[in-house]
Amino acid sequence: MTDTLPSAPSEDLSGDAAVFAAMEPHDPGQFATHATPLIRNCWYVAGLASEIGRVPLARKLLGTDVVLYRTRSGEPVAMRNRCPHRSFPLARGKLEGDRLICGYHGMEFEPDGICAHMPALSTTPSTVTIRTFPVTDRGPLTWIWMGSPDLADEALIPDTSWLADEGWGTVSGRYHIDTDYVAMHENLIDQTHFPFLHPDTVGTPEYARSRLSASTENNQVVIRRHLHNSAPPAVYGVPAGIMHKRVDRTSEARFVSPALHVAFAEIIDHEPDGDAPTNYRYNITHCFTPESNTTIHYWWFNSRDYKPGDPEIDTFLTDASSQAYSEDVEALEWIMDVVKNDADPQIDLSFAPDKPGLMARRIMYRLSALEHTMVAGER
Amino acid sequence: MTDTLPSAPSEDLSGDAAVFAAMEPHDPGQFATHATPLIRNCWYVAGLASEIGRVPLARKLLGTDVVLYRTRSGEPVAMRNRCPHRSFPLARGKLEGDRLICGYHGMEFEPDGICAHMPALSTTPSTVTIRTFPVTDRGPLTWIWMGSPDLADEALIPDTSWLADEGWGTVSGRYHIDTDYVAMHENLIDQTHFPFLHPDTVGTPEYARSRLSASTENNQVVIRRHLHNSAPPAVYGVPAGIMHKRVDRTSEARFVSPALHVAFAEIIDHEPDGDAPTNYRYNITHCFTPESNTTIHYWWFNSRDYKPGDPEIDTFLTDASSQAYSEDVEALEWIMDVVKNDADPQIDLSFAPDKPGLMARRIMYRLSALEHTMVAGER
Amino acid sequence: MTDTLPSAPSEDLSGDAAVFAAMEPHDPGQFATHATPLIRNCWYVAGLASEIGRVPLARKLLGTDVVLYRTRSGEPVAMRNRCPHRSFPLARGKLEGDRLICGYHGMEFEPDGICAHMPALSTTPSTVTIRTFPVTDRGPLTWIWMGSPDLADEALIPDTSWLADEGWGTVSGRYHIDTDYVAMHENLIDQTHFPFLHPDTVGTPEYARSRLSASTENNQVVIRRHLHNSAPPAVYGVPAGIMHKRVDRTSEARFVSPALHVAFAEIIDHEPDGDAPTNYRYNITHCFTPESNTTIHYWWFNSRDYKPGDPEIDTFLTDASSQAYSEDVEALEWIMDVVKNDADPQIDLSFAPDKPGLMARRIMYRLSALEHTMVAGER
Repeated sequence: MTDTLPSAPSEDLSGDAAVFAAMEPHDPGQFATHATPLIRNCWYVAGLASEIGRVPLARKLLGTDVVLYRTRSGEPVAMRNRCPHRSFPLARGKLEGDRLICGYHGMEFEPDGICAHMPALSTTPSTVTIRTFPVTDRGPLTWIWMGSPDLADEALIPDTSWLADEGWGTVSGRYHIDTDYVAMHENLIDQTHFPFLHPDTVGTPEYARSRLSASTENNQVVIRRHLHNSAPPAVYGVPAGIMHKRVDRTSEARFVSPALHVAFAEIIDHEPDGDAPTNYRYNITHCFTPESNTTIHYWWFNSRDYKPGDPEIDTFLTDASSQAYSEDVEALEWIMDVVKNDADPQIDLSFAPDKPGLMARRIMYRLSALEHTMVAGER
Repeated sequence: MTDTLPSAPSEDLSGDAAVFAAMEPHDPGQFATHATPLIRNCWYVAGLASEIGRVPLARKLLGTDVVLYRTRSGEPVAMRNRCPHRSFPLARGKLEGDRLICGYHGMEFEPDGICAHMPALSTTPSTVTIRTFPVTDRGPLTWIWMGSPDLADEALIPDTSWLADEGWGTVSGRYHIDTDYVAMHENLIDQTHFPFLHPDTVGTPEYARSRLSASTENNQVVIRRHLHNSAPPAVYGVPAGIMHKRVDRTSEARFVSPALHVAFAEIIDHEPDGDAPTNYRYNITHCFTPESNTTIHYWWFNSRDYKPGDPEIDTFLTDASSQAYSEDVEALEWIMDVVKNDADPQIDLSFAPDKPGLMARRIMYRLSALEHTMVAGER
Repeated sequence: MTDTLPSAPSEDLSGDAAVFAAMEPHDPGQFATHATPLIRNCWYVAGLASEIGRVPLARKLLGTDVVLYRTRSGEPVAMRNRCPHRSFPLARGKLEGDRLICGYHGMEFEPDGICAHMPALSTTPSTVTIRTFPVTDRGPLTWIWMGSPDLADEALIPDTSWLADEGWGTVSGRYHIDTDYVAMHENLIDQTHFPFLHPDTVGTPEYARSRLSASTENNQVVIRRHLHNSAPPAVYGVPAGIMHKRVDRTSEARFVSPALHVAFAEIIDHEPDGDAPTNYRYNITHCFTPESNTTIHYWWFNSRDYKPGDPEIDTFLTDASSQAYSEDVEALEWIMDVVKNDADPQIDLSFAPDKPGLMARRIMYRLSALEHTMVAGER
């Protein structure tokens, strides 16, 4: 993650941008697709912290079978889910204290991956290890580093602190999707599909046509929008009880890393009723981790900075989010089905409004290329 | 379809023909198999005309995903079922007037494939097109041309006019079969399997042993048989009410094109009862279109030139046909399963009675080779 | 099977053996894995003799589709399950006398594979044959030779005569397993997994730690153990009614051939109660035949030399065996799933106690290499 694209100046990408001139001449090799080798040097969500406990959990991440558990003191542990002796999946074994015990011949592994005991032997083969992966909790999430261990700097874990903030209310959900993380990122940073794929939730034509700016900052892509004196969309206005108002609205959608997309929205009501607040903030957190090049694990969180725990608002936001995300999931799975099964390959065309997605795909392409070049050089 | 084998003189293929000497020395490379590249320059049935309407229909034809619909005026339209922008399957979109609208970003396509509107853009990207396929109705069938568009001459659509003739009565059915169109053609033109695969319907040993002639005419293969003064088979005799008679019978089975096999039969009753007719004609139409090299769409029609719409005869002929065709379908699927899964490949042996099928397979091989050579030359 | 490793001297493989020094420096290429080409020059069990009768039976053996049936006089017949004419699976045909009749065109095959009749021809194409496989009954088993026919010496069929001995009682069962015969052999000759995979049946720690000797004899691997004055395991002691005794116990586990593993156990009660016997013998017969490189057919037999037919003992031994073998089956399927789906290939580590399994895998590797070299040389 040390490679950084030069930051692009902020740029107007609204409807007046030139058709077809989205970027430099279209070179498909310069943009990641589902077939691009997965980026490993990145912190990904391995799962919810609450999923990982004293019963070993098997999960395939970036094509590798991983077993996840916690020590008695609660520290998360991640190791390869394949015994180095006879390939038994360790998640089918059991925990004894902090050690994971293979269910076939009883080989025992410490949380650091060192073999601590092999029952059939009188001497412990202590030079035998199993590969472990750096793993750490951040609020409700457990993050894992599947790349080169010496690059696993926890300072690189992106901020999602609002998920653990008691002042915020959060609802959430999850999917296992037959799509790729590239298409998912492009879907999330692209808002021109709202009126067509999400006509009943977030797809107001007014929003889709509003002016936006897009820029890259340290391998991130950010698009920002400001709407003045307009009706709030239902997903923000209904829970805040301000559907009868005209408000200002600032929103930011951010490709944070291959593992994370976050959207921030702020609604400003300049004439609040009674003691109602002036500002309403929403942070939408999309975590996704490739299981393979064509399947992903996906966790979403919809957070607000008011009325945490209000059951009515929780229900409303859960339902509204689920409907919109289900529409995305369905569309992305239909597309993956076409991409995988069509006998006539196609290079997709792009237009000016695709620029934010293409920026993200270019970053992903370069991160993948850099990583695979480095790995090749090391070997 | 401009390549034509020299017409072969009519030839006696009855039981006295020499064993093993079916054709020139057996060269498997000269006969199409399931693995031969599919012939694209040919009119195939895309579906029943009644299936194609104002709701987009997705169908895979010759390995390509196609979406089919009708304009407001009823004209059939076929285009690639993959948006050129982000690969969304257009059949999941919707029609507005004559335009097909992508369900992801609302891109709009005219029946001729030209992009007429892209909502996120202020200018229409009118140089953007999607591939369309020539498609046209003929009676109950809608035909499609999946090959080079400049070769799509509607005059090449084979005659099936009896299907739309009110003087004829027709029953029909359909299958999706795990087999290949080569094996299907060989099955249809081969009648030596009747006594074994269809012992209860068409398989009279007398018929199987009767003398036949086989010839090629303009890339078609025709076999003809004449039986004098014999009992009619139930499938022809029962509906005509002449099972107690001895009749003359003329039959022709014709490999018309890679997409079509038609069988014609005529029964002549020289001493009709009362005002019963002297002649009874049956046209059996087999349309099939490869979905892939190992699966086909199949539609069959059993037509007679008397008592159209008679419900008792319709039921009898539907049942008798369905039984026989189900036996063929089952056998062809068993064979495809062997061919695909057997670890020891086999080159099938052939005998004199296989000559009609081999003639058809040789035509298909040459059409495929010619087409793929031409395509290679064009590129 | 004429290639023989030099017999290894018997060797102590108990817990004191050096870690990692199991064999010569670990060369994975010298030990069979699931990917090693299957050994064909070997007698395998085609099925139970009782399964094969006057209804043709289809079974895939070593990747080849085989049809099995019996002549009117009861002789087993095995031939390729694919008609040489149009690839119809002959098991879908029918028997007439001793001939198998193809269900498509009625081609008839004698038990020796010679075509005896082709109905559409006036002359029999008697030079046409289908491949047959040597096959013969031994007690409840029917053995087949899938390799070079001229090497099919019935004297090479291994002894399992106790299965047909009326003085012995036998219970049995079968599985179709998603594993490979190499992993199955290694599992059967390895007893260090007993305490972990089979804690409730055969896994006494005392037994696992007992000294054993391992040696190779004529491409077989034998491990032997003697326990003096110890409690019998329930699986042997309960049916004999000697759980309250301390007994001597001799056991032998033998990799007989790629198709067969047999375990022999003898319990000696030096002070039998009343007229109870002094000796109790158990022969455990494991027959398995690769269906493919990753699936096997498996039949097991648990035989005892006392109280044949005792229903209570039969039930006890069936239940105890089924539990233990189900645990093995489950573990081997989990491992195969890892091996087939893990994106990061692994070369398994081995330790001193793995030596018997590695001996068997080395024999299998050499038999496979020898056979494939020979075949290559012949062609």
